[in-house]
This record gives sequence, C-alpha cells and structure tokens, in this order.
Amino acid sequence: MAVQKSTQPAPGKPAPDSTRRSEKSRRAIYDAALALVVEAGYPKTTIEGIAARAGVGKQTIYRWWSSKADVLMEAFLDLAEQSMEEAGPAPYAFPDTGDLAADIKAVLRATVDELRDPRFEAPSRALAAEGVVNEELGRELVAKLMQPSLDLYITRLRAAQEAGQVRPEIDPRIALEFFISPLAQRWLQHTGPISHEYTDTLVDYALHGLAPR
Amino acid sequence: MAVQKSTQPAPGKPAPDSTRRSEKSRRAIYDAALALVVEAGYPKTTIEGIAARAGVGKQTIYRWWSSKADVLMEAFLDLAEQSMEEAGPAPYAFPDTGDLAADIKAVLRATVDELRDPRFEAPSRALAAEGVVNEELGRELVAKLMQPSLDLYITRLRAAQEAGQVRPEIDPRIALEFFISPLAQRWLQHTGPISHEYTDTLVDYALHGLAPR
Repeated sequence: MAVQKSTQPAPGKPAPDSTRRSEKSRRAIYDAALALVVEAGYPKTTIEGIAARAGVGKQTIYRWWSSKADVLMEAFLDLAEQSMEEAGPAPYAFPDTGDLAADIKAVLRATVDELRDPRFEAPSRALAAEGVVNEELGRELVAKLMQPSLDLYITRLRAAQEAGQVRPEIDPRIALEFFISPLAQRWLQHTGPISHEYTDTLVDYALHGLAPR
Repeated sequence: MAVQKSTQPAPGKPAPDSTRRSEKSRRAIYDAALALVVEAGYPKTTIEGIAARAGVGKQTIYRWWSSKADVLMEAFLDLAEQSMEEAGPAPYAFPDTGDLAADIKAVLRATVDELRDPRFEAPSRALAAEGVVNEELGRELVAKLMQPSLDLYITRLRAAQEAGQVRPEIDPRIALEFFISPLAQRWLQHTGPISHEYTDTLVDYALHGLAPR
C-alpha cells in the first residue's frame, strides 16, 4: 500500500554538526527498533533495548518519541519512504489518468511488490500481529500507516464518481475494501498467493460486479 | 464465519465409564488450552502448561494430539461447534433459497455475530495473531478452520453460476473474498466497525459492482 511521507521528529533548531549527529542517531534507532521487533517480537521490544542496540542513551529516544510504538511506527514509515524513493519519482500520488481500472491496478501492483519486499516482511508482520491482539496499537497503525493510503483511494474513487465511472450511491470508504482487503487477508492469513494477475482480477470483478449485466 | 463440524479425537474403544472420563478430560484440556493462549499468548502456551491447568498427565494429551497447535485448533473448533448448536438447527449448511444475495447476507450476519461473541474474541485473536508471523501455523489455521467455510462459499457461488446469477467467467475462489476479506480485515486490523448493515452493503456492491450499468 502506498504510504504517505512521514513527518520527521523535530529536534529543535540544532547547529549543522548536531543535525548530522542527530540524523545518524535517528537512523541507528530506527534500525535497532526494526531489528528488535523482528527478533524479539513487539511485547519484548523496549525503549531500553532499542537504546542499547542503537548505542544511544535512553533519554535520546525519549527526547524525540513518547513510546516504543511511536519509534516503531516512524521507523516503519521511514522504511516505506526509502522503498518508495527507490521506486522512482512522484510515488506519493494516486494516479488519475482517467482510466480508473488501470490506475487502481497500478497502485495494487506496487502494493504487491512492497508486501513481497523482504525488508518489509518481518517488521510489518510483527507489527500487524501485535495489532490483532492489541487494539490500541492496532488503531494507531491504522491511523498512522494506513489512513493516508485509504484517503488516496477515497479521493480517486470520488473523482471516478464525478466522472460517472462509479455509481453515485457507492460509499468510497467501503468500496476501497474490495481492492485492499482481499490482498491484505491473503498476506496476513496466508489464505492464498499474491500476484499482479490476482490484484488485476480483483479490480475487474469489483468494478463490474459478479452478477451478469 | 460458519465453521464445519470437527472430527473428534478417537480414544480407541473405551468402556462407557472410560468414555465419560475421557470426555471430561477432553473438555478440561480444551478449556485450559483456550484460557492459556489468551492469558500467555501462543508462543508461551505449552503442552505441559495445558496438562497442568487441565489436571491431566502430559501423556493424556499426547495420546490424542500430536502438538499444541492441534489441541488449540480442536479446542477452537469445539467452541465454534457449541456456538453453532446454540444458534439453532442445521447450522452447517450454506443456505440456497435461490436468492444469492439473501443467502450470503444471512451467512455474513451469522459471521458478524460469531466475531462479536466474547468467548471467541480472545482465543481467535491470539491464534490469528500468531498465524500472521508463523506461516506454518497460519496455513494450518486456514486448512482446518477456514477451508470448510470457503468451500461452502465456492459451492454456493457455483450453483449461482449454473442459475445464471453470477457470470460464468468469475472464479468463485476469488469472488468469495469480496464477502469475507473486508470483514476479516476490519476485525483483524481494527480498520472499521462491523455490523449486519455493513456486510449487507458488501454483498450488494460485490454482486452488482461499482461501475454504472
């Protein structure tokens, strides 16, 4: 799923040298947090453990983040951002070529590639698994990691409604689930393989329905 | 989701008294397994712990099941079965009244009720969360707990295809995901509320599509 650019932590107005040191610490903290959640799981990942592994003081972490959930989510957003920068220019926008099916297919193909990226797999599974049993964290993951993408789907579907390509009575917030939920369930629950061909099929079925015309 | 009746463990051909004792032990083991996975999580639930809590010997468990995953899945199937017996007669069949939308809506409404049953919530979340990070267990959960229900959807959708209510080129295995995956994602990831009205809407959108006719 396309993920929006995160806001960076704002460590005051540091001098250039301090900024460089801060940036190096921030990256070490992200790397440590992602590695720990994969190795130990979310419940056993602690601010102390992240600090020790990153080689920084605990207070450095508390200066920028209020909880381990915040550190992990920003570390994950940063990872997503790196991956999207590698993917090429303008990765944050949902395409609007006027061809709704083609646009959604393109976004879903990119989502499939992201879900298959081995750098993502372990940390995103660790966070998602914790979100299943920890409703507060689950809701934070949705608000910070998913909602920006859901909003892009809603905007694109509304444009399609204005262009007469989606029925006006359709609720875009529910409609978008036909594109993202089957893929999410296959990935989360191992209910089936994921591929570009599969997500293309979802788009065709969702737009045209199952019943004959 | 409607869950098929499980096969019971077969403790040989015991005398009536032994059968009664076995049944009592089996239930104690199921209760202990479900309670432990909720309290301690899947990774920390052990055969030893289940045996101690159930007041039986470890060997009693190993005589009937080969692993803690097997115990937990049968305990969960047993719970689902009890819930369905309470729900009334013939709960295992997928209705076929000839009205596809009404039939799928009825099944999904029952699934919503099951997902909201507090007895299910904690153990099914604990197992689902482990399935996200443990592919082998995830695939076992699909095969033992979900596949029977998926097969019922496939059979019903094929009947609808024969009746000319679903386009012949639709793959029922993919089509069924429009009914179950949005609900599963809302439940697993806390992405939105679940209700009968919501699942009714999914059925209408899926059958008729999003694009104008």
